[in-house]
Order: sequence, then structure tokens, then C-alpha cells
Amino acid sequence: MHEINFAVLGTGGIGRRMLDVSTHKAGLTPVAACDRHGVAIDHDGLDVEELLAATEGNIASDPEGRDASTDGGTATVGGVKQTGEDAGVVASAQATATETPIDAVIAESDRIDAVLIALPNFEHDFIPRVADRFAAADYSGVLVDVLKRSRVIGMLDERAETFREQGITFVCGAGATPGFLTGAAAIAAQSFVEVESVDIWWGVGLRSGYEDNRGTVREDIAHLPGYDIDDAREMSDAEIAAVIDEHDGVIEFRDMEHADDVLLERAGICDAADVTVGGILDVTSDEKPTTTTVRVTGRTFDGETGTNTFQLDDATSMAANVNGPALGYVKAAVRRNRAGEYGVFGPAELMPGF
Amino acid sequence: MHEINFAVLGTGGIGRRMLDVSTHKAGLTPVAACDRHGVAIDHDGLDVEELLAATEGNIASDPEGRDASTDGGTATVGGVKQTGEDAGVVASAQATATETPIDAVIAESDRIDAVLIALPNFEHDFIPRVADRFAAADYSGVLVDVLKRSRVIGMLDERAETFREQGITFVCGAGATPGFLTGAAAIAAQSFVEVESVDIWWGVGLRSGYEDNRGTVREDIAHLPGYDIDDAREMSDAEIAAVIDEHDGVIEFRDMEHADDVLLERAGICDAADVTVGGILDVTSDEKPTTTTVRVTGRTFDGETGTNTFQLDDATSMAANVNGPALGYVKAAVRRNRAGEYGVFGPAELMPGF
Repeated sequence: MHEINFAVLGTGGIGRRMLDVSTHKAGLTPVAACDRHGVAIDHDGLDVEELLAATEGNIASDPEGRDASTDGGTATVGGVKQTGEDAGVVASAQATATETPIDAVIAESDRIDAVLIALPNFEHDFIPRVADRFAAADYSGVLVDVLKRSRVIGMLDERAETFREQGITFVCGAGATPGFLTGAAAIAAQSFVEVESVDIWWGVGLRSGYEDNRGTVREDIAHLPGYDIDDAREMSDAEIAAVIDEHDGVIEFRDMEHADDVLLERAGICDAADVTVGGILDVTSDEKPTTTTVRVTGRTFDGETGTNTFQLDDATSMAANVNGPALGYVKAAVRRNRAGEYGVFGPAELMPGF
Repeated sequence: MHEINFAVLGTGGIGRRMLDVSTHKAGLTPVAACDRHGVAIDHDGLDVEELLAATEGNIASDPEGRDASTDGGTATVGGVKQTGEDAGVVASAQATATETPIDAVIAESDRIDAVLIALPNFEHDFIPRVADRFAAADYSGVLVDVLKRSRVIGMLDERAETFREQGITFVCGAGATPGFLTGAAAIAAQSFVEVESVDIWWGVGLRSGYEDNRGTVREDIAHLPGYDIDDAREMSDAEIAAVIDEHDGVIEFRDMEHADDVLLERAGICDAADVTVGGILDVTSDEKPTTTTVRVTGRTFDGETGTNTFQLDDATSMAANVNGPALGYVKAAVRRNRAGEYGVFGPAELMPGF
């Protein structure tokens, strides 16, 4: 396998961890990273250590700061530069300020093998529109996102023909869930000739990681009864904090709209309706409140019914379980792309067939 | 995904179950099957029901017959035609007798997408030599085996250049273990940046399935201390039965030579030495004596150590866990082959990259 150069769009919690994890992986070189205000590009490889140090404080040392409002201005919370002109990637010596950071990456994209879209919590069609921009600029390569919502997959499918013409291999929903757990479900299904149900249940402990993952928490809140993604996007940080407080910092989610359902259906494994996703988020502890588990129940060719189970150790963080798999799918996608396989793929389609 | 036509070499327990399971799968059409004495070919699709009914009895109805010797002649044990001129695939109305069954399949191989090699318990280089014959006959397509022994992988690798020139995509070790559990380990590894150990532990209950899986049991015995594959091959059925009786029908295996080790190493996931395979075979019961479990222990990018776990329901039979995955890997391999990716691949290489 040849070296893979990749860019990360978004240097929030997920984007920063992707850069970090990539330094532990063979064959992956991050060459570009951007956020809303700046971009860092180095085709010989970014200095990830410098970039992370410049843009991230030691949050864990000051968790008390986590409820401070950072709306509308520059603020430093627990040592993290959160917003404003000096915040984010431009704090790195490798970065330059720009109002058009994605265009800056696109301008260099003929030298980039894969682009990781690590932008949570925007409009539903934000990621599809980002993909449009790469396609329009004649990009040929891999796009990978870690989106969660089922409805976005359809929007990407509408673009599949364009991606195929353009030589783009788009892997959607390649984080933890959907992503890691979708792939695990696809493997677990292999005992069966008919899958009756897939039950995905996650636990996340996010005390010290809370500041770093505000976008993810905000998006999770959109899954609570009575909320949707528009509500969640428009809520102030104080309103988000109030919802969390109402639940004493431990929020249980049931029947979430997670794209695991459509991603397993498109791989032919089961109907989307047979997939349920739920979990518990605890922002008061770094311990997981429940063990992340995938249960796949099906019928074997010889008439038995059983449930295969995949469990993640409680010691594996959300960050480990999002970013390792995301980069794993990047490798699989680049291989597909180099072999000339273009279009839209879900994680389960990069597994053995069902 | 277009339709896949495939052939099965060997119509013992594994081969017959592959045909059976394929009838439950979308997009897979068995077009050829052979054993030592005959071959059945129909490019419109074999009548699997007829073939299975003609070549297999209701073993479960007469488990007492399982110790009868069938060495050297025609015998019917528990309704199964075991050996001799009338045994096996030629009992099917679709089959013809031949002394060169593999050549007969090779002669038709330009119309075959994939060939499943379901031939346990032969010489180490038997499967590589079968592949040589397909390559020499200008076959371009997929070859998949369910071999177990680590040393065979190297023999296949020696042929990788020939396979690439010829347009052959060879997936080796694509049964239960190695195969299914290797793939599960590759997925479970995705939380980690360094894998410390992979522990594969299987349970098989094979009372009613014993007659049908003599070859597999014989190969397992080669893993016992004091035995090797040559000993096991040369033992009479009565001698095999005596070994089983010595263990009261329940045999525990430790540190087996299973190719999971080299297959995980070649995918870059861990060193072969970090992989251990063991299990318990119980021929006195159809219940599994222990739960089949894969444990992958590693270190995350953020410095934690944990163990992810994959467990198969005790209700899933060995046959379900060999043949579903084998056909899943066939689908993945045909996709690779059609995209122009040739050579030798292990199951873990058909997963997200590590």
C-alpha cells in the first residue's frame, strides 16, 4: 500500500483527534487542516504536534470552566481557545488566516488522496454541499465523513453519478456509530442467512472531553424527544448546558436517527427498520456509563436463531473509536479509489458481502 | 453487484454446506461441484436440492453408525454414501463420473467467476498446487480456500506474481477460523493504535455433524501434542475414533497452528506471535462446549489498554460460521477481481485498513 496524503476539514474535537491518531498509523500523512478561520497546508506533512499544541489547551486540568459561555466572542475556557480571531488552527505557526478555508484546501486537492470531513452539527446538506465543491473543482480522490444522520445518505446518493464521473470515492458515516459499529454488525451478520435485528447501544463518558466535543454533544441533544437538529443548532451554549443539567449530566438516548440503519440496508444485510441505536452520554465522568455493544440477531441456514455480540472495552474512548475506524475506512477507500471504484459507499459495503 | 457464478471443489461437509448456504444468498449461483470421483456442471445453476439429497443421508437419525470403518471400500454409514464408486457427487443425476474432476471444472472455468476450494486434510501444498493448475489453464477470476494452517499462506505468496499476471484474486483462509474470526479481530482492532494480543477461542459441538465433518476432525487431531498432519492423514478412521475415545469425545486444543496469525500480521495488525488460537471440540453433543470468542487487546492513541470482544451465539453452528463468511469473502473477492486487484489476500486485508 502506497502512502496516503490526507486533509482534515474541521479541527474541533474529531478533526484534532484524527490528526493525532494518524501519527500512530503507518502510511498516513496529514497534509492539510482547516477550520472556519484558517488553513494549514504542508505537502511534506503537517507538524501535528505543533498544530495540536497551538490549538488545544489542557482541558482536563480545568473541567470547572466547561460551562462558561463562549458565544459571540473570543474566550479562553480551560486553556482552550474557543472562538474569535485568534482561535483554532490560525494559532498554529503552520496556518494562515482565510475566510475561504475549504477553497484553500480544494486549490491543493490535486495533491491530496483523501479528505476527511470532520464537521459535525451543520445543516443536513452541509456535507453534501462540501462534496459538491470538491467535485466541481475536478477533485478525483476519496471523501470520508463521520456523519450520523440517516437522511444525509440519500442526499449523497443523489450525487453518486457525479462522483463516479469525477473519480470520487465517497465513504459516508465512517466514525464510531455509524462506522465502526456498522462494520462490526456487518461482520457479526455473517453467521446468518437472514438478519432479524441489529441493536447498537453505546456508552460515552465525556467529562474531560466535553469542551473538545461540544459539537458532538449538541448533535446528540437533537436526538432527544422534543428536539431536532435545527433546535439544537440554534441553542446557546447556556441552553445546551441547561438541558444537560436537567438530566443531571447523564442523558439516555433511545431510537436515535443514526445512519447505521440505511447503511446496513444498502449493504443488503437487513431492513433499516430492523436497526435500533441508543446509548448513554455522561458528561460528569470519564468512565463509560454503559458498555458499547452491538447485538446482531439472525437465523442460520440450518434453522437456528442466535445473537452474535461485539463489545468495546470501557477503557476505549469515544475518540479512539471514532478516529481509528475513520482512518481505517480512509485506507480502504483509497484502495478502492485507486482500483477505479467510484461512487458512494457505506462502511458495511467495505466488508465481506452478505 | 452483478451475479456471481461459482464452483465448489470438494463435496464433503464443507462443500455441501457451501452449496446449501448459497441458496439462501442473493447473487450467488453455484454452477459446478466435484469430488474425487465425479463432477456436476450446469452453467444455468445446479439443482442444489437434488444434489444434496442424492449425496447425503439423514446422518442425525443414526449417530450410532459413526464409528463404523469405511476404509477401502463402499459403505453406507447412517444413510451416507461414504466411499466407493457410487459415493459422493456421482449419486446426483446432474453429475458424471470422471477420474479428473478438477480438470473438468478447469475446462469450464472461463465461465466461472469464483472457485471455492473445500478440500480439507490433504498435503500442505495441495491447495497451492490446485491453484497452479487453474493458473496454468489461463483462469482469470477468484480462488477462495478455507485452509487452516499458517505455513500454506507462504506457499501461496510464492505464487502471488503468477496470480497477478494471470488475473487471479486468491483469498486464503476464508472459513470460520481463520476467516470469520480473523475478520472480526481486524474490526475489533480498530479502537487501538497498537495491538498487543489476539486470542481466538472456539467451541464446536459435532455429534450429529460428525460423519459429515470427518475431514475437519482429522485435521484438528493433527493439532494435538504428539501428532502432525502426516500422522493424522495416515490414521485409519478406527485410529481417529480411538483418539476421540481417549478424550471421552471432548478434545481441548491449545496453541493451534492456525493461519489467523500470519493473516493478521500480513494486514499489519499485529505480529503473528501475538495471536493464539485454541478451542474445544465435543463430538458427544451438538451443544457447543464453550462459547466462540475473539479477544483483541490493545493500546489506544490516548494511552489506555483495553480488550474488545466478539462472541458468536452458541446456537450458530460451525457450518453456519464457516460457510456464510466463506461466501461473504467470495463476494468481496469477486468485487476486487472485477476492479483489477489480483494476487493473494487474507480476510483481514478485505477489511478497513489498520
